[in-house]
Amino acid sequence: MTQAQPRPPAPFTSDEYAARMRRALADATQAGLDGLIVMPGPELVWLTGYRPTAITERLTALVLVPDREPTLLVPVLERPDAEAAAGAPGLTMVDWADGEDPCARAGALVHPGATMGISDSAWAMHLLGLQEAVPGSSYRSLTHSLPMLRAVKDERELARLAAAGAAADATYEQILRVRFAGRKETDVAADLARLLLEHGHEQVDFTVVGSGPNGANPHHEAGDRTIEVGDAVVLDFGGLMDGYGSDTSRTVCVGDPSARLREVHEVVRQAQQAGFEAVRPGVACQEVDRAARKVITDAGYGERFIHRTGHGIGTTTHEPPYMIEGEEQPLVPGMCFSVEPGIYLPGELGVRIEDIVTVAEAGGQRLNNTARELRVVE
Amino acid sequence: MTQAQPRPPAPFTSDEYAARMRRALADATQAGLDGLIVMPGPELVWLTGYRPTAITERLTALVLVPDREPTLLVPVLERPDAEAAAGAPGLTMVDWADGEDPCARAGALVHPGATMGISDSAWAMHLLGLQEAVPGSSYRSLTHSLPMLRAVKDERELARLAAAGAAADATYEQILRVRFAGRKETDVAADLARLLLEHGHEQVDFTVVGSGPNGANPHHEAGDRTIEVGDAVVLDFGGLMDGYGSDTSRTVCVGDPSARLREVHEVVRQAQQAGFEAVRPGVACQEVDRAARKVITDAGYGERFIHRTGHGIGTTTHEPPYMIEGEEQPLVPGMCFSVEPGIYLPGELGVRIEDIVTVAEAGGQRLNNTARELRVVE
Repeated sequence: MTQAQPRPPAPFTSDEYAARMRRALADATQAGLDGLIVMPGPELVWLTGYRPTAITERLTALVLVPDREPTLLVPVLERPDAEAAAGAPGLTMVDWADGEDPCARAGALVHPGATMGISDSAWAMHLLGLQEAVPGSSYRSLTHSLPMLRAVKDERELARLAAAGAAADATYEQILRVRFAGRKETDVAADLARLLLEHGHEQVDFTVVGSGPNGANPHHEAGDRTIEVGDAVVLDFGGLMDGYGSDTSRTVCVGDPSARLREVHEVVRQAQQAGFEAVRPGVACQEVDRAARKVITDAGYGERFIHRTGHGIGTTTHEPPYMIEGEEQPLVPGMCFSVEPGIYLPGELGVRIEDIVTVAEAGGQRLNNTARELRVVE
Repeated sequence: MTQAQPRPPAPFTSDEYAARMRRALADATQAGLDGLIVMPGPELVWLTGYRPTAITERLTALVLVPDREPTLLVPVLERPDAEAAAGAPGLTMVDWADGEDPCARAGALVHPGATMGISDSAWAMHLLGLQEAVPGSSYRSLTHSLPMLRAVKDERELARLAAAGAAADATYEQILRVRFAGRKETDVAADLARLLLEHGHEQVDFTVVGSGPNGANPHHEAGDRTIEVGDAVVLDFGGLMDGYGSDTSRTVCVGDPSARLREVHEVVRQAQQAGFEAVRPGVACQEVDRAARKVITDAGYGERFIHRTGHGIGTTTHEPPYMIEGEEQPLVPGMCFSVEPGIYLPGELGVRIEDIVTVAEAGGQRLNNTARELRVVE
């Protein structure tokens, strides 16, 4: 089963990280912010290459403000790891020790009364500490204040996302050859995880195997249910490869599909195609959702498509832009996101088909390219 | 290598979860709070048994206020999973769909002007949404407002922590028999992970293998360094078993230890013993830190013990109470925490010895019981 591993791409350089930090601060200024506070997570990885081994109560914060060098405040214990990050040469590193108040230390880098952007997933505990430490300061989440900060990928990021997508596709091709009938969902999920790792992923984020009625719960992961002949099985899997995400879904049938499954699957396939075809520069995100949803609504299943059509992907598997009604952000070349309509029939079955799509000048381009027709497995 | 798996303990019942929610609200009221907002993470697991498969931008929030039933707001996609949680019978479940504003929905359950406790690791994005949705509301992190909420474990929690500790001990006994010299740190770390899983852990949180100079970085995980004869190797590993944490450290030597390593190791061993012996009901947490630190300071290594002596453990591997200077919280029977002094000599070596200790009426009781003497490996 082992295959040739993809050649690892050259790492991003400290100059590239420095350029990202400069652009982030320029975007923040343009958006009316006085600076950014970035905590561990996808934004910090994107800006500095630094991913702490664990995200804990010990504060790590990148502070970007116009009047000083980018400053990373880290627990003294974690300083050696932070210094090893690819973006470290572009940072002033400051450490703090147990017993000190790190929020006061971070707050000292922020002007009183400043309006700062802050990472979505920063801990509430740390935000409250900053609000207390800096009189009159106010905060806006990065998703609300700078939603498109990481949304447009450069060529090297696109290459990574394409490689991650190809690895997910290879995983799908191989999972079609394993046995489904009589095995548990968790067994097939373990196969998916193993294959993603074999194909070069360093991290598996989700391996959904939703068989029969479990497929009707879009967020069901994989359980003890034994897969039966006749089941529709939703497969939705992905993770990180060289720091960038994969995420694809296909729905297969164990043995001959029923007429009902064939019908529902075909509606979802056409909806996915319609969503994909709506992708081109300048079109609002919500138009992608509308295009996919219209096919499902017209077929009479509108009430059974209970989630948005897609989400962005990059250094994390869920990020802006979101393909959802009300999102008027126009698509820009280099954006990457999922197009993943589904139909969920409670107690019966679910069908979802998902590709990552990137926006090119001429329209959408798929980063997942396995067949979207209903495949039969054993 | 496989051994008999420990018998899984009976799950907590919905009545037990309901009692925890009542107690949490009573404690909150006593602390001057108008209620609690609990987001996914260790507090939510402890209060409801619910652990979403992923923690994302989609808001999940448990709202505990005096004038209504405990209410769990969940994304409609995740409702089936939430309803399957052991604590669900004690909850009013409310769902929201993509496109709605979940912070406004959660905020509608909170009185204007209320002071609410909120989970430490709640997303800043969601806290900002609540602050905007509820005029005049203010928030305090659970660690600051109710630090001891989960600190005192009941008998069944203690049984789980003891079982997790025994599994970590069995892992240590077996790792002593693997080869160290000539292998990479990451190879030994993989052995530790495999052994923890074999001994019943469902989740591995960390597998530190710090050899030679890498041992001097307390948060070094495991790297490409090839372990050499003569190296001191810090091993620090743990994870979750039946939802409760393990965390133990030992330092071993590959072949004959130097006089310097013997000396430093003996200082740390005595410091760990002194910290352990300081544990008894009514003693302030900081006294445990002081007792361990005094031994190291008296031996002339005070500057090289660069972290607190310990942290609580329960449904997560890092939680209050913290054994640190300035923490005046008295120890209470049922508390569980690490006692883990260390000495770190940059460029040379590190030594750390760690046991989980619980407070009994008569004093401390170790949940890790492998030999703390310096062991030689091959």
